[in-house]
This record gives sequence, C-alpha cells and structure tokens, in this order.
Amino acid sequence: MKTLLQHRSIRKYKNKPIAGELINKILEAGTRASTTGNMQVYSIINTTDANVKKELAPAHFNQKMISEAPNVLTFCADFNRFNKWCLQRKAEPGYDNFLSFITAAIDALLVAQNVAIAAEAEGLGICYLGTTTYNAKEIIEILKLPKGVVPITTLTVGWPDENPGLTDRLPLEAVVHNETYQDYTEQSINDMYREKEILKENLQFIKENQKETLAQVFTDVRYKKADNEYFSEKFLNVLKEQGFM
Amino acid sequence: MKTLLQHRSIRKYKNKPIAGELINKILEAGTRASTTGNMQVYSIINTTDANVKKELAPAHFNQKMISEAPNVLTFCADFNRFNKWCLQRKAEPGYDNFLSFITAAIDALLVAQNVAIAAEAEGLGICYLGTTTYNAKEIIEILKLPKGVVPITTLTVGWPDENPGLTDRLPLEAVVHNETYQDYTEQSINDMYREKEILKENLQFIKENQKETLAQVFTDVRYKKADNEYFSEKFLNVLKEQGFM
Repeated sequence: MKTLLQHRSIRKYKNKPIAGELINKILEAGTRASTTGNMQVYSIINTTDANVKKELAPAHFNQKMISEAPNVLTFCADFNRFNKWCLQRKAEPGYDNFLSFITAAIDALLVAQNVAIAAEAEGLGICYLGTTTYNAKEIIEILKLPKGVVPITTLTVGWPDENPGLTDRLPLEAVVHNETYQDYTEQSINDMYREKEILKENLQFIKENQKETLAQVFTDVRYKKADNEYFSEKFLNVLKEQGFM
Repeated sequence: MKTLLQHRSIRKYKNKPIAGELINKILEAGTRASTTGNMQVYSIINTTDANVKKELAPAHFNQKMISEAPNVLTFCADFNRFNKWCLQRKAEPGYDNFLSFITAAIDALLVAQNVAIAAEAEGLGICYLGTTTYNAKEIIEILKLPKGVVPITTLTVGWPDENPGLTDRLPLEAVVHNETYQDYTEQSINDMYREKEILKENLQFIKENQKETLAQVFTDVRYKKADNEYFSEKFLNVLKEQGFM
C-alpha cells in the first residue's frame, strides 16, 4: 500500500545496472497478475543493450530515459505464442480479430503495472512511455515482433537519481461515480479542476507555452487533434498488419 | 511484493459489506497509478446497490460474483470529463479518435490493477471480469455512460470466502524475451507448455469437455472464433457510438 501511495515517475537514473536476478524476480511478480482464461497472451521484451536502446530512442521521440535507464521493458499484446501452441495441438485458433487484440492488450497492461509496483517495492524507479502506441510500427521492426504481437506500453526501469514530489491528482469524487455515472455540470467541472489550475507549476506551464488556460496547453501543445488523428490511423494500420482486424 | 506473489482470483465472497472508508482508501491508491500526461482520462463506477448489480449480471453472463460481491467496480476509458473541461476553458478537444481511446483504456487499466493490489493488501479478494468488453454496449446503458466513456474491465471485490491455490503460469522464459523478440520453435513451444499440459486439473478439463488437447478446450469451448468475431464487431460499434472512431 505504501509503495502504491508513494509512486512518482522517475526520469533520471543512476549509471548502475540492475542485477539479472532482481529483474527476474520483478518480472516473475509481473506474471502473477490476472490474465484472461490464464492464456497469458502477452510478452515482455527486456532490452539492456545500448545499441538496441539507441535504435528504439527515436520511436520514443528521443526521451532520454530510453538511453539512460539500464532496462527498457516493452509490454506487448501477444497471440503469436498461443496461436503456435494451438496449431501444434490440433486446435484452430480464432484470435485474428479486434476483441482478441483488446484481450491481449489488457493482459499486457495488468502485467506492466504489476512489474511497475514490484520494481518500486525493490527501490527502483519507473517511467511509462506512452509513445509506444504512437510508434508501434517502428518498435515492431526494431524488436522484430512477429504477426500477432503489438507493443502496448514501455517501462524504463533503473535506480532513481532524483526525488520528485507526488504529482497532483483530481479529488477522488471527480473520478469515482457511485452506483451509475453521474455526468458533470459546469459547476462540478469548475470545482474539480480548481486546485489543479491554481498550482504554481501549472500556472508556470501556461506561461511558458504562452497560452490562456491549462486546457489549451493540452489541446494546442501536448496532445493535438492532428497528431492524435495521424497516430490513430497509424496504429489501426499496425493492428491490420499484425493480424488483428 | 508479497501481495503480488500471492494473488489468486477470488470468486466466493462473505456476505459482509466493505466499509465506505476502506473502499475510498483503496480507490485513492488506485488514482496514484501513472496516467498519460496526468490527464486521468478514466472513471470508476462503484456499484453496491443490489438492483443495479442485478441489471449488470446478464452483461457478465450471470457470473455469480456480480451479485455476491459487495462492490462491483467498472473501470472506464473516459474523455467525457476532460472534454467538458477543455470546452469550458476555451480549448478545442481533439480526442474523438482511436488513439485517444487506447490512451484512456491504458489509464483505466493501470488504475484497475492498482486498485486490485490495494484491495488485496487490505485482505480483500478480487476477480476481473473479461466480459466487460464483450457486453460494453449493455453496460453503457445500465451504468448510464455518456459519449466519450467506454467500460474496459470490471473488478468484483469482497471479503474472501475461499482459499484457492496459486494458478499455474508458463515458465518466465516463455513470456520474456531478451533484447529483441526470439520467435518460438516447435520444440520451445513443446517445452514451455509441457508442465501446464500435464497438470491434473488441466487433464480433467480436457476430459470434461471431451476434447483431445487442452488447446482445443480454448479454441472450441472457451474462446471460440465465431464468438470473438461477433464481439469484435459489437465492441467496434461501441467505439463508434461513444465517439472514438
């Protein structure tokens, strides 16, 4: 519980490897996560080689964590292994469709979060890279992912070389609904976002980006419609190419 | 770490509620999970009312955990709240696309796994319901989810009334690849699935289903091609209707 409550993303790592035994212990804890029908339709690529990390860097928009973290873990939806097993056992797999992709993606993400928590429980720091779905195509090529395998998220893991404070969150009642969904009113949105909007770092963020509101920093700078549409198209193509549509 | 390693799905619960304070503590721990750009594009519906649970039951194929667990938590990808905030702050949201759905689904799943672990750390038992994506359409109606919101997974939570053993898992080397993906050979598939295939409960499972191999139980009984295709179509329609395609 303490581990969960103290989570912060760590983006700066010491130049110190993680022992193979420790990584295995953490990954083993990852595999204890729930998995649909105990099919384990995911794979984890554990990259430590500087050359492979260098290749991966542009796919993650050259975020420095990729080269500086000793371990880069790419979590993939993976029906390739399961399909191969079926075919070797006189069974006809029927997993070349969107639902199966979602099922495998859920599997991969539950494992990823278990790995994140296990790493933090061991004193390591982690950071998720959302760029994984943006540039899944390039990651597939670099990591040699066969048909049936799609990267969903990436964790960089290493020994922390920074100690940031907790990130702000919306009040619990903003994200939890009792019984059924209670839609938001103009007033409730104002109330729920007030604290976030007056945080010093967020005011600074608006200023730096020369915007009028914090929301505009998201829509006009960080997560733009044109980018989202471009990467949507690209990711849907990846699902087709990898045999899930 | 101990909590992670001891995870088992709990499907039988005591007839005893979970205190509101405890649920809030667990959900609070959930919200500490990483979230893309700190947008928190998810919602959790906490259902305890017997009538709402009764309505939800058929959408989850009447699995008894829905009525017997004191709390049913539905985790949703949610851009509705964020979009409303943007519109109230002179910002034009561009999140009506597939990538944004995936981003929000990832957010929802990392929170779900944090909640699962927090609940287990408090002595509660949990079970994931994969039926959520199968019958998202019905769940949207029952839980009154507006446009921009899609249910991704469900956790039933309660005080355990059973004590099952750990579920088997493939050996770690079956799901972890070093540096890049090492594709499987006929031999490696045989080696990796051997232990699973000779487990007493799995041999029993084959017999009960009158199949020749364990793989056939999956392809012919549990996760059939025709079902997967039907539910793929249905889920893709949900994404369209909720404004993500």
